[in-house]
Amino acid sequence: MAEAATSRRSRITPERESELYGAVLDLLGEVGYEALTMDTVAARTRSSKATLYRQWGGKAELVVRALRHNKPLGVDGVGGIDTGSLRGDLHTLHGQQDDCEFERSSALMRGLATAVHHNPDLRQALRELLIEPELAELRKVLQRAVDRGEIRPDNPAMDYVLHMLVGAIGTRALIDELPPDQEFLHSYIEAVVLPALGA
Amino acid sequence: MAEAATSRRSRITPERESELYGAVLDLLGEVGYEALTMDTVAARTRSSKATLYRQWGGKAELVVRALRHNKPLGVDGVGGIDTGSLRGDLHTLHGQQDDCEFERSSALMRGLATAVHHNPDLRQALRELLIEPELAELRKVLQRAVDRGEIRPDNPAMDYVLHMLVGAIGTRALIDELPPDQEFLHSYIEAVVLPALGA
Repeated sequence: MAEAATSRRSRITPERESELYGAVLDLLGEVGYEALTMDTVAARTRSSKATLYRQWGGKAELVVRALRHNKPLGVDGVGGIDTGSLRGDLHTLHGQQDDCEFERSSALMRGLATAVHHNPDLRQALRELLIEPELAELRKVLQRAVDRGEIRPDNPAMDYVLHMLVGAIGTRALIDELPPDQEFLHSYIEAVVLPALGA
Repeated sequence: MAEAATSRRSRITPERESELYGAVLDLLGEVGYEALTMDTVAARTRSSKATLYRQWGGKAELVVRALRHNKPLGVDGVGGIDTGSLRGDLHTLHGQQDDCEFERSSALMRGLATAVHHNPDLRQALRELLIEPELAELRKVLQRAVDRGEIRPDNPAMDYVLHMLVGAIGTRALIDELPPDQEFLHSYIEAVVLPALGA
């Protein structure tokens, strides 16, 4: 799926692709996944629907690739993240987005968490293109921390790092009526994630 | 708002109220908040729309009271929760629901986390009837733990307990493709919440 999409997408410029992803995320924040259609994306981005289908195959993959493009975690970081400490790696994973991009990602994730239950193709795209790569990236970060002796190899919190991070981002607005900005996430990583990992 | 609703609701029996809340939660899981209408609730529960509006005032309050009735945390527990230890209190907060009720609550919360951004009345009902009472209950639980010397009064993770718990419940299905059952939550409280609190 990923390779096919890459070759299809190569027909448009990176600038155009980035612009289009931005529009998709805007629309998603405005209307939610269910109400978002290829028609509205085509209208907003002045593309033809045929082009969108040819490049992305469908709504699910277009939406998930748009989110991934916005780098919610460090999955597309050049050569991965390796600052030399667990604290540095965790802060860097989320530190690549500015607060505006960050709010956008979190709104999208909230929307998708509901939509995923009614859309098997969205669930598959989300797992293949976002969840699995993020889990793999986190496992590398954690394994290096184990190798350096920063955390114990049997610490059960290692299985829950993504739940902690994505959960905090997703609930911030609901609980505190504030956006999940970088300052919040930095404080949450210090107060919750690192102590839970025993680091 | 809460008192007015209680006096309105007293016109129906507790059994009928419980049955109706169950139907609202079922519907919410099936169609989401935006698509749920007082018409569909009326049809599903064989009530008149006039009765629903008279008893609950509107969709937002009906939906939030339905969720609250399902006891996502211990806010409606008789006399509050006080097991004598932080570990016991935290496990009991969530231990009052069976796995089926629990899955239902978490599906609802996922749906509401999106809908809340477009519905100020839903946001207000959610804060007044659910978030604030849960935060107040958690503060009591944490204050008792501080008084017993189980956690430090300045532990920054105390501000994030609801983020940790609600976040884990909300992300479980997305990350692990498994429902957020009691076994998961028990393990998460042991691995993440208690260590983060330094308990």
